[in-house]
Amino acid sequence: MSNAILLAPGPVQLHPEVQKILAQPMIHHRTPEFDTILARVLENLKSFFQTKHPVLIQTSTGSGGMEALIVNLLNQGEEVLAIVSGKFGERWADMAEVYGGRVHRLNCDWGKPVDPAAVKKILGENPNIKLVLTQATETSTATAHDIKAIAEIVSKTEALLLVDGITAVGAYDIRMDEWKIDGLVAGSQKAVMLPTGLCFVCLSERAWAKAKACKTPRFYFDLQKELKSNQKGETYFSSAVAHIKALDFVLSEISKTGLMKHFAEQRRRADFTREIAKQMGLSLYSSSPSDSVTALNVPEGIDGAKLREHLEKKYLVTVMGGQDQAKGKIIRIGHMGYIQEVHLIETMYRLALALKDFSFNVEPEKVKSTSTTWLEAHPFEQ
Amino acid sequence: MSNAILLAPGPVQLHPEVQKILAQPMIHHRTPEFDTILARVLENLKSFFQTKHPVLIQTSTGSGGMEALIVNLLNQGEEVLAIVSGKFGERWADMAEVYGGRVHRLNCDWGKPVDPAAVKKILGENPNIKLVLTQATETSTATAHDIKAIAEIVSKTEALLLVDGITAVGAYDIRMDEWKIDGLVAGSQKAVMLPTGLCFVCLSERAWAKAKACKTPRFYFDLQKELKSNQKGETYFSSAVAHIKALDFVLSEISKTGLMKHFAEQRRRADFTREIAKQMGLSLYSSSPSDSVTALNVPEGIDGAKLREHLEKKYLVTVMGGQDQAKGKIIRIGHMGYIQEVHLIETMYRLALALKDFSFNVEPEKVKSTSTTWLEAHPFEQ
Repeated sequence: MSNAILLAPGPVQLHPEVQKILAQPMIHHRTPEFDTILARVLENLKSFFQTKHPVLIQTSTGSGGMEALIVNLLNQGEEVLAIVSGKFGERWADMAEVYGGRVHRLNCDWGKPVDPAAVKKILGENPNIKLVLTQATETSTATAHDIKAIAEIVSKTEALLLVDGITAVGAYDIRMDEWKIDGLVAGSQKAVMLPTGLCFVCLSERAWAKAKACKTPRFYFDLQKELKSNQKGETYFSSAVAHIKALDFVLSEISKTGLMKHFAEQRRRADFTREIAKQMGLSLYSSSPSDSVTALNVPEGIDGAKLREHLEKKYLVTVMGGQDQAKGKIIRIGHMGYIQEVHLIETMYRLALALKDFSFNVEPEKVKSTSTTWLEAHPFEQ
Repeated sequence: MSNAILLAPGPVQLHPEVQKILAQPMIHHRTPEFDTILARVLENLKSFFQTKHPVLIQTSTGSGGMEALIVNLLNQGEEVLAIVSGKFGERWADMAEVYGGRVHRLNCDWGKPVDPAAVKKILGENPNIKLVLTQATETSTATAHDIKAIAEIVSKTEALLLVDGITAVGAYDIRMDEWKIDGLVAGSQKAVMLPTGLCFVCLSERAWAKAKACKTPRFYFDLQKELKSNQKGETYFSSAVAHIKALDFVLSEISKTGLMKHFAEQRRRADFTREIAKQMGLSLYSSSPSDSVTALNVPEGIDGAKLREHLEKKYLVTVMGGQDQAKGKIIRIGHMGYIQEVHLIETMYRLALALKDFSFNVEPEKVKSTSTTWLEAHPFEQ
């Protein structure tokens, strides 16, 4: 078997140029060289977030970004509506409770998106809700919520809409300003195509106004401090120089391609995966599949955890399994990162080989040729 | 001028092998390969911290580690003694106040270490003090405090001693368990010789007991959550895979050398810098110079900020200047990271060249030969 393939919903495969940049000798963050890079990155992050507002860089995982939104925007005792459609929705609801939020949980069945009408109803019945929390894509179920529709509802209330876009921003179209999102977070090891270690946070005007008045204690995740430093051309804490240099490359590349074209390429990978899976006799777990990650139901009678492990050990393809109630039932294939056609084809081919080893009725060679044909029939126009 | 040199008190020069590791293709953190690395790293971190207690890895800068110690160990309204001898002491005292601490600040003159007797006196007069905060080395003044003496005093009281060892742990001897330190934090871009992005936190037994009872809300920096995940062989949040793989290499290297020998090499760099500086006619800023970083007074009549910039622009040597009240008055030369003899010699030589450009009376060629002679006379025995 040839090279290892990593198609997880983060971390993702790195661009060879990113690997080179990470290997460069260290430079200090208080140097003209780094100042120039940081300024360019902060500017390019705005296009990436489709916003005119500043996007802040934090040295933390994505969960640190979710925490930043909470501690800067939630006052002790305030009511919160948390859309919970999987593991990360649960995490954010728990977090809001830890910081004193009175959390209404709108639970969705796993693999189902939230019904915007249900959001509207709860907000109507609970006019004191100050924050609405939702994932853009719930990573654990590979399910995309209709953020545009939710934002349309929330923006007409006094509540702020906070969106965990960790498995979404940069992978498909999320319009911070146009849709009126109030807080949006992205993570480095997802569509930003870097190693884990950074997250990115953006606030709307009304969110900044609330942050200024918010009484919840915070220091490391204090966004006002960070913004002030950025305005002086610095980060408040030591800059994660290596990551930020690589980020500069990634954002420049995406901006050269064009954001919408970049999204089209991600969508193509998702479409490919779903179409070939269907032809293999596999069904989708989610009724609202995301363009960033696809969850496939593992055929009846096969243990998904064992299949995933077998695929990794024998065929060197790392995808993710299911968590909690989806454990052993699904595999999740990521569409973000540096992915070439050979990775797409080989992943489906080797998945077929692995399934065959579990006596599933599939013809790997046919999967391979169908995959190649599909990609030829659906070229990506740079 | 040959290659660029970075001798700052963090970030530091990377080992070539670390650069290679950072350039490797990404692997997922939920794989047997990473599990093995994480287990080894968590074990080796204990020796590095000279402790039998677990050392936790956080994806954040060092300040995130300082915050973790506060939010896990400080209850709202408790009295805190903060030793403030520079910028980072100020930051920690501010942080404790943000989280509801009633902070007594023991201010030291910049460049002077704290007098342990003063600590004893304050603790005697204020028996309700629950936490004592101190830097091991105050980076902004390159001053080392006598942590052993402070720990001897604090450990006889009910207060916990929390030590910011960000510019110390791994550079010189800090004995977590033997000296009875209750909380200790280190940072990746310092003596751990990695890029910025990780910090490391360790608690004593009595600190863990307090953390369990501590009421301050926390999620991202919740050490109990992280400990529990580590016990299952995982990190709670996405692991910073690239950094942790490189960390594995660094810790293995240091353990091969032996911790005390490794410290001796750092000490040699510090001794070298101070001795050659003295011969050049430069004096030390600190009365208790640290082995991790040396602050030199910039000669009368020369603007230190301009000197630093000139050294960087013309001679490609990045060292740091002074901050706040030491601004323009000092330069700080780091001793941590991947430093070879050529870097030591060239730094002092080029510093002499830069000083000469500012009409300082120094003979660069003589500095170079003296430097070489000194190193030959003081060999490092591997």
